[in-house]
Amino acid sequence: MTASAGFVVIGDEILSGKTKDKNIGALAERLSLAGIDLCEVRIVADDEAAIISAVNALRERYSYVFTSGGIGPTHDDITAQSIAAAFSVDFGVNQEAFDLLASWYKETGRKMNDARKRMTMMPVGAKLVENPVSKAPGFQLENVFVFAGVPSIFEAMLDAVLPTLEGGVPIFVETIGFPCGEGDIGTELAKIAEAHGGVSIGSYPKMVDGAFLTDIVLRSRDRQALDAAVAAAQELRSQVDGLLPSA
Amino acid sequence: MTASAGFVVIGDEILSGKTKDKNIGALAERLSLAGIDLCEVRIVADDEAAIISAVNALRERYSYVFTSGGIGPTHDDITAQSIAAAFSVDFGVNQEAFDLLASWYKETGRKMNDARKRMTMMPVGAKLVENPVSKAPGFQLENVFVFAGVPSIFEAMLDAVLPTLEGGVPIFVETIGFPCGEGDIGTELAKIAEAHGGVSIGSYPKMVDGAFLTDIVLRSRDRQALDAAVAAAQELRSQVDGLLPSA
Repeated sequence: MTASAGFVVIGDEILSGKTKDKNIGALAERLSLAGIDLCEVRIVADDEAAIISAVNALRERYSYVFTSGGIGPTHDDITAQSIAAAFSVDFGVNQEAFDLLASWYKETGRKMNDARKRMTMMPVGAKLVENPVSKAPGFQLENVFVFAGVPSIFEAMLDAVLPTLEGGVPIFVETIGFPCGEGDIGTELAKIAEAHGGVSIGSYPKMVDGAFLTDIVLRSRDRQALDAAVAAAQELRSQVDGLLPSA
Repeated sequence: MTASAGFVVIGDEILSGKTKDKNIGALAERLSLAGIDLCEVRIVADDEAAIISAVNALRERYSYVFTSGGIGPTHDDITAQSIAAAFSVDFGVNQEAFDLLASWYKETGRKMNDARKRMTMMPVGAKLVENPVSKAPGFQLENVFVFAGVPSIFEAMLDAVLPTLEGGVPIFVETIGFPCGEGDIGTELAKIAEAHGGVSIGSYPKMVDGAFLTDIVLRSRDRQALDAAVAAAQELRSQVDGLLPSA
């Protein structure tokens, strides 16, 4: 069985370009290692209808859904109430979160004001996710995991949750670098892809000092199938000099 | 009138974490400057059904849709055929693209092989978008702009197209840095947001050396309304020391 995942990034600041997202790459890498396929990401504004629509679309489709952003103490943090609306459940103070934060603020000499109280409001039925960085917890509701947007907190929450998820069979990955553009090897590569159906073969061009290089990435859950495809790609790699115009 | 945009990022390499996307931030920044609101981003796999579904959802909803990735010469580049399917139009060699590349390859001593010919195949009715970096063009079909995924080429194609788009009224943006966490100012900030309805006020926490700082970003197309909200936020900023526990 393969576990799948979707990710909803919530925040006007990403869509305006003010903040560059760092959580997509972090989530993608860790899920890959856990054998969970990240299948789709949506970035939406701080807008309740947009959040509801994205979360509901993805939670029906994938084993797990993660969200980042919008669970802080300010008026534009509307993720928790939007998740409650998406699940059609009540929304209010979560007593466990309230007690946790109240004692934390007491300990650190701060007041539980209205803004901070917002961070204890969650959908009914939410299970807390620990935040070792700044205490205010994330939460889980069914297969949806609601995390903070600040990357250090997002990753800490993910680390807390990952061991509890059912991963699939890990994917084996091999990368072969080609000293040429995709156009030089695309025709031969298509034949290899056709002959090795159980292996996903991706071709990723990059420009270095004005010249094209290509990474060929082979991925499979079947080690033997992967090895056979890798051997074919290495054979192609050994022929590359003959394919290049400058050779 | 406000122009809106959606963005579909196409590529297994982004979802697996192998490649970190750089195009979302670049597009977001440039659209903001042009007065076009980026409203939604979707990252999907190299999968025809997923591409069709995302492109069709967004092109109905927004003034412009951009896509990145999947227009190269290899077997996993299926964006162009997927766009044709999304629009239910025929797909085949675009003669203008073919002539352009054929003469480019002749000039540079390379052959027009099957792989490279793939890059000349487009939906019928596509209008070419220039690629000054590596020649193989992107294309436009109605309100959908299909660009390469390599960041230098993506940005060059965007630069070629942006002057042809109808922008809206540019957004004025002011940022005020607060030397505290969101919880310290959230209650007061909510009152400012309520009193200044025409101004979007975002609160973006960040951690620096283990301490929280908060950027308050105020955005409006109405300069006077923005100035009034900024004055109120600056007033709050001047009171901050009194709100902090350590003061």
